[in-house]
Amino acid sequence: MGLLNSSIVYSEEIYGWEFLEFEHFEDVKFMIVGLPDVGLVGAITGMHLIRSKDMSYTVGIDHYGALPPVVIMNRGRVLHPIRIYRSGDVAALITDVPILPAAIPSFSAAVVEYSRRRGIEYIISTTGVGNPKRLEQEKPSLYWLASDKKASLLASSLRMASEPEQGIIVGPYAIILKEAMKKHVHNLVLLADSFIDIPDPEAAAVIVEGINSITGLNVSVEELIKQAEEIKLRMRDLMKETKAVMARMGKEMEYRAPILYT
Amino acid sequence: MGLLNSSIVYSEEIYGWEFLEFEHFEDVKFMIVGLPDVGLVGAITGMHLIRSKDMSYTVGIDHYGALPPVVIMNRGRVLHPIRIYRSGDVAALITDVPILPAAIPSFSAAVVEYSRRRGIEYIISTTGVGNPKRLEQEKPSLYWLASDKKASLLASSLRMASEPEQGIIVGPYAIILKEAMKKHVHNLVLLADSFIDIPDPEAAAVIVEGINSITGLNVSVEELIKQAEEIKLRMRDLMKETKAVMARMGKEMEYRAPILYT
Amino acid sequence: MGLLNSSIVYSEEIYGWEFLEFEHFEDVKFMIVGLPDVGLVGAITGMHLIRSKDMSYTVGIDHYGALPPVVIMNRGRVLHPIRIYRSGDVAALITDVPILPAAIPSFSAAVVEYSRRRGIEYIISTTGVGNPKRLEQEKPSLYWLASDKKASLLASSLRMASEPEQGIIVGPYAIILKEAMKKHVHNLVLLADSFIDIPDPEAAAVIVEGINSITGLNVSVEELIKQAEEIKLRMRDLMKETKAVMARMGKEMEYRAPILYT
Amino acid sequence: MGLLNSSIVYSEEIYGWEFLEFEHFEDVKFMIVGLPDVGLVGAITGMHLIRSKDMSYTVGIDHYGALPPVVIMNRGRVLHPIRIYRSGDVAALITDVPILPAAIPSFSAAVVEYSRRRGIEYIISTTGVGNPKRLEQEKPSLYWLASDKKASLLASSLRMASEPEQGIIVGPYAIILKEAMKKHVHNLVLLADSFIDIPDPEAAAVIVEGINSITGLNVSVEELIKQAEEIKLRMRDLMKETKAVMARMGKEMEYRAPILYT
Amino acid sequence: MGLLNSSIVYSEEIYGWEFLEFEHFEDVKFMIVGLPDVGLVGAITGMHLIRSKDMSYTVGIDHYGALPPVVIMNRGRVLHPIRIYRSGDVAALITDVPILPAAIPSFSAAVVEYSRRRGIEYIISTTGVGNPKRLEQEKPSLYWLASDKKASLLASSLRMASEPEQGIIVGPYAIILKEAMKKHVHNLVLLADSFIDIPDPEAAAVIVEGINSITGLNVSVEELIKQAEEIKLRMRDLMKETKAVMARMGKEMEYRAPILYT
Repeated sequence: MGLLNSSIVYSEEIYGWEFLEFEHFEDVKFMIVGLPDVGLVGAITGMHLIRSKDMSYTVGIDHYGALPPVVIMNRGRVLHPIRIYRSGDVAALITDVPILPAAIPSFSAAVVEYSRRRGIEYIISTTGVGNPKRLEQEKPSLYWLASDKKASLLASSLRMASEPEQGIIVGPYAIILKEAMKKHVHNLVLLADSFIDIPDPEAAAVIVEGINSITGLNVSVEELIKQAEEIKLRMRDLMKETKAVMARMGKEMEYRAPILYT
Repeated sequence: MGLLNSSIVYSEEIYGWEFLEFEHFEDVKFMIVGLPDVGLVGAITGMHLIRSKDMSYTVGIDHYGALPPVVIMNRGRVLHPIRIYRSGDVAALITDVPILPAAIPSFSAAVVEYSRRRGIEYIISTTGVGNPKRLEQEKPSLYWLASDKKASLLASSLRMASEPEQGIIVGPYAIILKEAMKKHVHNLVLLADSFIDIPDPEAAAVIVEGINSITGLNVSVEELIKQAEEIKLRMRDLMKETKAVMARMGKEMEYRAPILYT
Repeated sequence: MGLLNSSIVYSEEIYGWEFLEFEHFEDVKFMIVGLPDVGLVGAITGMHLIRSKDMSYTVGIDHYGALPPVVIMNRGRVLHPIRIYRSGDVAALITDVPILPAAIPSFSAAVVEYSRRRGIEYIISTTGVGNPKRLEQEKPSLYWLASDKKASLLASSLRMASEPEQGIIVGPYAIILKEAMKKHVHNLVLLADSFIDIPDPEAAAVIVEGINSITGLNVSVEELIKQAEEIKLRMRDLMKETKAVMARMGKEMEYRAPILYT
Repeated sequence: MGLLNSSIVYSEEIYGWEFLEFEHFEDVKFMIVGLPDVGLVGAITGMHLIRSKDMSYTVGIDHYGALPPVVIMNRGRVLHPIRIYRSGDVAALITDVPILPAAIPSFSAAVVEYSRRRGIEYIISTTGVGNPKRLEQEKPSLYWLASDKKASLLASSLRMASEPEQGIIVGPYAIILKEAMKKHVHNLVLLADSFIDIPDPEAAAVIVEGINSITGLNVSVEELIKQAEEIKLRMRDLMKETKAVMARMGKEMEYRAPILYT
Repeated sequence: MGLLNSSIVYSEEIYGWEFLEFEHFEDVKFMIVGLPDVGLVGAITGMHLIRSKDMSYTVGIDHYGALPPVVIMNRGRVLHPIRIYRSGDVAALITDVPILPAAIPSFSAAVVEYSRRRGIEYIISTTGVGNPKRLEQEKPSLYWLASDKKASLLASSLRMASEPEQGIIVGPYAIILKEAMKKHVHNLVLLADSFIDIPDPEAAAVIVEGINSITGLNVSVEELIKQAEEIKLRMRDLMKETKAVMARMGKEMEYRAPILYT
């Protein structure tokens, strides 16, 4: 027989989203958010952290009106479509379904508000920036953007990372950033050059190295690089679903210049 | 003259769904749910149980806003589109109309809540899992997934059945499973390898054998196999409607890998 | 100068539908409902009863949100799109506009509730059942379905009519039947084999004969047969509109088998 | 410098429609309504009355949710999209934008209610009836339909006009007529044979002559005929927009027979 | 390290739109509104004013339900999609995202109401009017339209500008104008002949000269002309997005004649 399902010890609804806790969610300092996005960089980052550190499934997130009617089966265990795993003071949020455009504002705001209520200090958003010259890059570049001074101090431990000159962020990370500013949660966005429509484990590796520097997690990146081909294959369908969602939320706006320049 | 219609002795509305009882619905231990889905496995299972055991029509379920405006005529009797039949401590829920995507959450939650209110111990969901190699199988495999420990004990009487390694369930059974976990109703999902777009009575036969083991019903499977061709023909149009609904609810997600693997 | 418009003596709103009475609507025993449907059998039946018995326009039914913005002009008189005519203890409801799918539940329920409030004993629904072999029939067959025992007694005066073995009714008549069962109004459905997309006055004639037997109205059927060609021509456009609406409400479900059979 | 804008002296909201009065709107007996419709007959009629009598802009009508975001500029003056002009005891309502199907019920009911509140005696609706033989007519025929006896007396001064035998009116004028019957405002509909998709100033001229007889306005029709070509050209785009709206509100229903005939 | 983000010192919600103030917004006399529209004339005007005068980012405007989920990154700083900059008694409102048709009424009314609450005297709307003969013009013409007498006095300092004879304005500026009339804020609309689907910096230059005359700002126009090619290239994608939005709000109505003419 496989694994047994845990029971729900506490649940809370925020902006229509249910947060179902299988363990009490306390004493977490860093919440790494890894959503399916450009090159699935965030999703791969989240998956790799959880597997490497054997994090435990702590919180299920659900919303019948905003998500497809889905459960994940894993060796006899029932998993909710969006999940938070946890190990020590680091948590990682991943999802098996892309967040549809209409659900982005409430979902993103709920994640920030839940983090605030649970006393999380830093939300670390992880994502790719589509770079048409990605193929020519030996190693993708790492960029960061901070919601405030305290979050920017976190970035000081990053080697070789820079703030992007100019650009537009479209999607849940944009709302998480704006909500963090309003709610005084500290939010650091880590971005890596990435393929757009192909899962990019090498870009995720660059992000993982950054997370190692910031959190002291010490997650191996080698394995991620070794399994790159397998990951690309495995994530092909999620990439396709994500691509469809990105088109609908106006993601292509990221590839044009903002109106002001300096 | 045909059969006479029974009068409604009690009715109750749950999440917008009307449960119209033609007899009081008490002392039921097992609720077998047979919805139209992959290979119509659940629908065929439900139909076969009701006919074999000559179960009696006990509860009509309706929702003018969520279902097409439909009644079924059967030798002078008027039937509601979704119905619960019953014999002894076993009940079977079937439907003549597919549940549209927008109605899935409220319908599934209402079924669990109604079961809870009527003191039902086990909800047994019956469905197919599309297997591209189905044609090569002598006998389809049986799988199960349990909402909790008590439901998993029920599965211990199943011979030759296993928990699936990994996978995604999309549709009403996913919500029924999650609601059962929240409401502490015990839910066992029985899945059989199945054709996707062709009614698959052989897959239903495997499920019926499982139900026999669990409930002690002793329903003949031979007849089901004998009538296989007739059933396929008869259910062709319901299969077509179901296929259209499955496409709209993102059912194809069942054929990709979840993000985590172990 | 033509006819003068009557003034409204009483009006009542039920489920968003306005019932505007030009005379007080009392002492009616039978309400014949003739909606545009398969072969326009109901619509032709209603029209023929009203013209033959020179019934008087008694109630206008309207709903700005659910019906197109329409009035009918008839020799200087202004008519509402849905109307009830009356002669003695028999009333006939007809409509110049098809009921759109979204409006079917509220309209059908309002008709039953209005009938209940006005003390009507029997609602007699009149409709066609599409029969692909209709062309080969000398005379279309008549079928009936009753909501309860009292309604079925009404059918005992019908010669040569039978209850259909099995089938599905889709549309307003399905909701009227279910509401009648809930509200304890007696509802008899009269169905005649019919062409599907061609107005079928011969099928209507079979229904009219049935109504004669039940109500003692004694309406001539000869004239209906004589004017068949003219009626087909005149109703061609209403047939086209009705066909479009039937497609949208899933009417084709009537041509498949229900899931259970006996 | 051009004209100055008047200030709003009073405003009132009815069913979501704002009535902005630049002068107090009192002592008006006839409200001529000229909406864009078949052959733009009403719109041309309204325009011609306003220009011939040099009527003054008295009331602006607006609804941000139902109308496109529009203002009209006229020699420095800002005009609302729907406007009432006035001269003596006659007012004329025109619009630069077609009323969309979803807005027709609330708009039409608001016009009747506003008329009732301001003590207007007669609403005179002006419109075309598409006649496929219009090209063969020397002079289009004039028809009328009255909401009640008092309105029909108004029609007695019309020469050569008749009530139409049978027909269907689709659009705002249908709702205005039904609301007038309910609210006891007297409504006379003037209809002239018209081209359908081509602006038809000759049909408008026939209506203007009718209005002259009824109101004693004495508006020249000659000029309208003389400018016919210019008007057709100028109104080409409004005709196109109106045609698109008419298609969406089921206007083609006007070209079929009603279900009853006498 | 780049620029630091300011904190929000005050925020206020008007008609669903959040106004987030990074500095208190007081003592502003002129609010120049530069929305993406025909030829992006307003957007280019706003951008040029802000860059030339090095205005400071003072107010962010946001609405999760009405705008795409977006933030702008600028050298480490996080910017909201719609922003007000300020220098002395002049403010300029620009946006990186087009306002979708459904959001136009609430956005435009919120801008006027916010201006009223902050004591702004004049809202100056800046836009292009598509002129098919634009290519033949040495220098585009300047036009103006005033909401009231006080606003028209402002225009008296404009050389070579005139009120347009006739025309229709479609979009946010139409609602701003009508709301200004209702709320007694003074609104002057500056319009310049412009290309329709190509960014037109030369047309913006004509508007900037007008703003110089009115406000005494003394912004150089030379640089705008010199950078014309670069601006056209940079704004190509915003033009494309704007073009799509204009098509949906019925912008083509600007190219037809209003119903009345004088």
